[in-house]
Amino acid sequence: MRLYQKTLEIATKKRMDFIEITKDVQKMVDKSKIKDGMVFLNTGHTTAALLLQENDPTIHRDLTKILERISPLDEGYEHDYEGNENATGHIRNALLHSSLTIPLKNGKLLLGTWQRIFFIELFEPRRREVFLTVIGK
Amino acid sequence: MRLYQKTLEIATKKRMDFIEITKDVQKMVDKSKIKDGMVFLNTGHTTAALLLQENDPTIHRDLTKILERISPLDEGYEHDYEGNENATGHIRNALLHSSLTIPLKNGKLLLGTWQRIFFIELFEPRRREVFLTVIGK
Amino acid sequence: MRLYQKTLEIATKKRMDFIEITKDVQKMVDKSKIKDGMVFLNTGHTTAALLLQENDPTIHRDLTKILERISPLDEGYEHDYEGNENATGHIRNALLHSSLTIPLKNGKLLLGTWQRIFFIELFEPRRREVFLTVIGK
Repeated sequence: MRLYQKTLEIATKKRMDFIEITKDVQKMVDKSKIKDGMVFLNTGHTTAALLLQENDPTIHRDLTKILERISPLDEGYEHDYEGNENATGHIRNALLHSSLTIPLKNGKLLLGTWQRIFFIELFEPRRREVFLTVIGK
Repeated sequence: MRLYQKTLEIATKKRMDFIEITKDVQKMVDKSKIKDGMVFLNTGHTTAALLLQENDPTIHRDLTKILERISPLDEGYEHDYEGNENATGHIRNALLHSSLTIPLKNGKLLLGTWQRIFFIELFEPRRREVFLTVIGK
Repeated sequence: MRLYQKTLEIATKKRMDFIEITKDVQKMVDKSKIKDGMVFLNTGHTTAALLLQENDPTIHRDLTKILERISPLDEGYEHDYEGNENATGHIRNALLHSSLTIPLKNGKLLLGTWQRIFFIELFEPRRREVFLTVIGK
């Protein structure tokens, strides 16, 4: 059993940006030379998220619409002293996911037919990081 | 440290079907002969979910009611071109979980007193898969 | 590759109590002597949650407000026969997380600048447990 760890850097362009990182993650896994096991993705940000979903903008816009209703920008949050966009980012991070676990089989991320890996910006455009860990053989 | 990977097949019967798979998962873990470590469950579907909860239909119906309110069928989604049931399935997948991580101790899934493993159908009746990975010794 | 497993006990004081356990978890990881790999936290409770977020009470109160709106106490749940606070606890457990995966690097939990580990009580004050697993080298 072996271990491989590496950081991926991402530049987001807008609030509720859905950035597909599937190929980037597969490339990092390729470099690990590990063939079977588990891939762990973690983002250290409290106003961003990771998601496995289809690469279809209509789904991303529908999800965004529902999140805007659950946690509206004009809610009047206590945390608004950092801006209402920041406040909603924290809430959506809690309701979505800041980590993913993906099986690795024969050197390939074992994703479903439509599953792709997305980094979601929940705050404002900025440099972000995703940390990858591979455990396997 | 050892690795074991296997697929579990599930047939769902209706939208918002909660299917308990605890025993199936324990049997797969038994076959792995691994006694201590971690069990990872992943579903490759974008309109289904995995959940650890109590096996009490009132809880499942209450959760369903709340999800129907968060993401109503008659919302008018952009993704409705695949049907409104499909559109809500994607949203609920993002708000619930498509993976579970469960500790393994002395050959048994370390679940709480009331925790059971559920596969939740968020779209329509169909054949589904859950992929199991065990890492441990 | 090595494995370490241990239980952390927590006493919660009220419903929607956010208890920071970062230092407790780091101490357990220190005892494992494992330096690089993954840390897994699991709670076996169906009316509690684990969350990575900032240690800022305004964020916790904002999140609580949103959760109270998504799953109101006075909803009239089928599961109210165990009390409405219990019913909302199950629903919020499903919408939040009952497990966390955190990378381990050079003996330290690899958390983002603002990320801290929280146990959230979703029901009533009681003794709770978090189970830690470390896999690495």
